[in-house]
Amino acid sequence: MSAEPGETSTEDLVADVFARNCASRRTLESVTGKWGALSLVALREGAYRFNALRRRVDGVSEKMLAQTLQTLERDGLVKREVLATIPARVEYTLTPLGTEIADRMFGLIQLLEARVPEVVAARDEYDATHRR
Amino acid sequence: MSAEPGETSTEDLVADVFARNCASRRTLESVTGKWGALSLVALREGAYRFNALRRRVDGVSEKMLAQTLQTLERDGLVKREVLATIPARVEYTLTPLGTEIADRMFGLIQLLEARVPEVVAARDEYDATHRR
Repeated sequence: MSAEPGETSTEDLVADVFARNCASRRTLESVTGKWGALSLVALREGAYRFNALRRRVDGVSEKMLAQTLQTLERDGLVKREVLATIPARVEYTLTPLGTEIADRMFGLIQLLEARVPEVVAARDEYDATHRR
Repeated sequence: MSAEPGETSTEDLVADVFARNCASRRTLESVTGKWGALSLVALREGAYRFNALRRRVDGVSEKMLAQTLQTLERDGLVKREVLATIPARVEYTLTPLGTEIADRMFGLIQLLEARVPEVVAARDEYDATHRR
């Protein structure tokens, strides 16, 4: 960010998620999309096959889950493995980086779950004072 | 979750973000949406007026930011304050709960920013091996 003119290259820049073109912004999108976050945290529980993961992440469509897993795989957070069984099985697991990110996301989710009563109370109050 | 039949009420249930109808799921959506996450983390820096926040969160449209802030305010994470100045100023700040969540999100973002080279390398490898 403080590089002199002429010295700047993308490699020199510190990643800044606030900049719309930073690669970290795209990872933030895939990681924090609702389905990305839930898939990562589910995979902390161990390897999942596609359909089992789909049942775990309640409400996700087949298409959305496939897309989510593909993005997470491309970013190096999830590993897709075809096992040499008959019939062949496909399993998804977290990579070491995926595990680190999923652990942080899990902390965030635990906090959100613990604070649901507070959030619900805030919503009720908001809706009562912002009635149309 | 382990309540006996007849004893169950929504209040007794432990919040479960994996359940599609849980209130924590909706908060997860608003907090982890890209714009929600960036707005929360920006507001850790202090109070922001709307237009300044819009400049900080590079790439967000006026409509999306307004919608994001409204959801965060409704969930009790952001406080909207109309200051008695002439002309009146509107400022956004984090509530205590918003600060807790933003701190966790900041940790996640720092991790993502630090690991950008790893993510970019994973993408390059993926694209090389999954060429159409």
